Amino acid sequence: MITLRLDLGERSYPIYIGSDILVSPACYLPHISGHHIALVTNQTLVSLYGEPVRKMLLDLGKQVTLIVLPDGEAFKTWHTLNEVFDQLLVAGADRATTLIALGGGVIGDMAGFAAACYMRGIAFIQVPTTLLAQVDSSVGGKTGINHPRGKNMIGAFYQPRAVIADMHVLTTLPRRELVAGLAEVIKHGVVADAAFFVWLENNIAALLRCQASALAYAVQRSCEIKAAIVMQDERESGLRAILNFGHTFGHAIEAGLGYGHWLHGEAVGCGMVMAAALSRRLGSIDEATYQRIHRLIQAAGLPVVAPAFTQARYFELMAVDKKNQEGALRFVLLSHLGLAYVGGAAHEIVAVTLDHAMQAPSALA
Amino acid sequence: MITLRLDLGERSYPIYIGSDILVSPACYLPHISGHHIALVTNQTLVSLYGEPVRKMLLDLGKQVTLIVLPDGEAFKTWHTLNEVFDQLLVAGADRATTLIALGGGVIGDMAGFAAACYMRGIAFIQVPTTLLAQVDSSVGGKTGINHPRGKNMIGAFYQPRAVIADMHVLTTLPRRELVAGLAEVIKHGVVADAAFFVWLENNIAALLRCQASALAYAVQRSCEIKAAIVMQDERESGLRAILNFGHTFGHAIEAGLGYGHWLHGEAVGCGMVMAAALSRRLGSIDEATYQRIHRLIQAAGLPVVAPAFTQARYFELMAVDKKNQEGALRFVLLSHLGLAYVGGAAHEIVAVTLDHAMQAPSALA
Repeated sequence: MITLRLDLGERSYPIYIGSDILVSPACYLPHISGHHIALVTNQTLVSLYGEPVRKMLLDLGKQVTLIVLPDGEAFKTWHTLNEVFDQLLVAGADRATTLIALGGGVIGDMAGFAAACYMRGIAFIQVPTTLLAQVDSSVGGKTGINHPRGKNMIGAFYQPRAVIADMHVLTTLPRRELVAGLAEVIKHGVVADAAFFVWLENNIAALLRCQASALAYAVQRSCEIKAAIVMQDERESGLRAILNFGHTFGHAIEAGLGYGHWLHGEAVGCGMVMAAALSRRLGSIDEATYQRIHRLIQAAGLPVVAPAFTQARYFELMAVDKKNQEGALRFVLLSHLGLAYVGGAAHEIVAVTLDHAMQAPSALA
Repeated sequence: MITLRLDLGERSYPIYIGSDILVSPACYLPHISGHHIALVTNQTLVSLYGEPVRKMLLDLGKQVTLIVLPDGEAFKTWHTLNEVFDQLLVAGADRATTLIALGGGVIGDMAGFAAACYMRGIAFIQVPTTLLAQVDSSVGGKTGINHPRGKNMIGAFYQPRAVIADMHVLTTLPRRELVAGLAEVIKHGVVADAAFFVWLENNIAALLRCQASALAYAVQRSCEIKAAIVMQDERESGLRAILNFGHTFGHAIEAGLGYGHWLHGEAVGCGMVMAAALSRRLGSIDEATYQRIHRLIQAAGLPVVAPAFTQARYFELMAVDKKNQEGALRFVLLSHLGLAYVGGAAHEIVAVTLDHAMQAPSALA
């Protein structure tokens, strides 16, 4: 087992990465203060992982309130969040209660936000069960829910007490979810580490075969890269925004199709191709770099052709992006492979980029 | 104008206390980063104070989105909060937008929580227009909404960029609201400053006459006392809980009667008499001290007789208090005048205290 430590002053926490650590008391006990635990998971995971974790906690003498939510991004709403509050209140949860979020990004974001708001904040432990959640949503304390007018519009920066990332659970992940998770892994190479990008080019086949050592390295390196960025900018006032590479377009795709049609990682994968194309059109990266990014994303099995909305619809969907300032669209763009920045882009260049992304060009026209 | 500075590291902020500072640009401008301002107020205040503030901001060249909420504790709900989110999104508010909360405790709590959650946090300035909000809710960053199962159950600790407390607005406050605010003023003396309690005994009549200098001193001293406590314990892990004196019983009264029947300060006033009586019964303070507290609260015009619920109902209502640990009720109790602590109390002693509080004894039986 590897332990990464996220250094955020009084909000520091460890990330445990290893195989079969899901039911290891040693990963949980140092981070549980009280007697009462609220274990939040979803209907798909409850029997496979929820019950073993619950049993482990009961064996430790804890009182466990199991809260089972419906599965899927469509349920990442105030309504479901309020269900969590209701069940916490009925169970008599108080400020000494520890919440454990067991699941993918949706459970992590929503249960984390519940922990942030319940009685103005209770302790929580994140146990991500998807590759996406392990490499992305479990690092950095972003929690929240969707609003009908925009994804993740309501939320908080709230750090867990610990993150427990078990490699073994990834072997039961549907392939589509594994592929979606690879989008964020690739993103970390693109925006912050060209050497890791090269490693991914060489190991994408092994990752798709679920080779354990390759997965463990990809998770570790992703968490390290993201942790290094979050440690410099916990509340996303500057640098941290580069982790949004591909997300301006990606969020527009997700919202435009309706949440849940494409997985978040799929939308981000396609969005990264679009953001790389925009960087190329702005003259910021060269054609060869754009092609390498396009090729790796395609090799990972991620979509590279954008859904066919109108340009106007794309602009409308992108208008609510959290990076925008005073009404102007802001994008994460590339200076070169391994280095990103946040900047604007002329409307007509974005428009052309959108058109070509919907037509799946093999090279930029 | 007096400026108190709340020292909370990177979350430090000033509290301006003065007359006719409501429309003073100098109090606002240093704390507004962007061009767009969301001014949140209620239907009662919008013409009297909302419009002048809006005009001042427009004259400064700012874009102002006015958000007017219904007035009253009954509206401190998720539903109203979501209205704020909707209007912020429709107006295109982004992370550079500054939210101004203009109103009493309900507006401050709700708009502050909206600022805490909108896009995971935007800047906000608090402009409290009631005595209660000036001496209590504007200091310390507590924000939140009520849940059908408990008051302020959902919320965040989120600090404003500045607090602007204008003494002049207190002259238009209905007497019942002024009296309610005095409850928290008295509380600060009881739990933390015996000398201030003596000052209040000598000046309660002047305060009730709205004598400006007396009000200004009461606000200043209350903010100083609360600030000193919050600076030591921002997230209420220990010391800060003493500011909850009277609130265990007070919240039970509010919830039991239905929010809005008694004002928060009225419930706290009565709750303080009950908490002082409990401290007396536990042998922690003497009869004379209990009598002084009872007398001052009564002199302020606050209720001193508890609503006649059954004992069981009181215990049920108190069971959701945020101070409770592992199912056991916790109370803020007095060691002596000016010193409080958090502790438990035997069920039968609480029961007898409740019975007597409902019967309005002049002295403890």
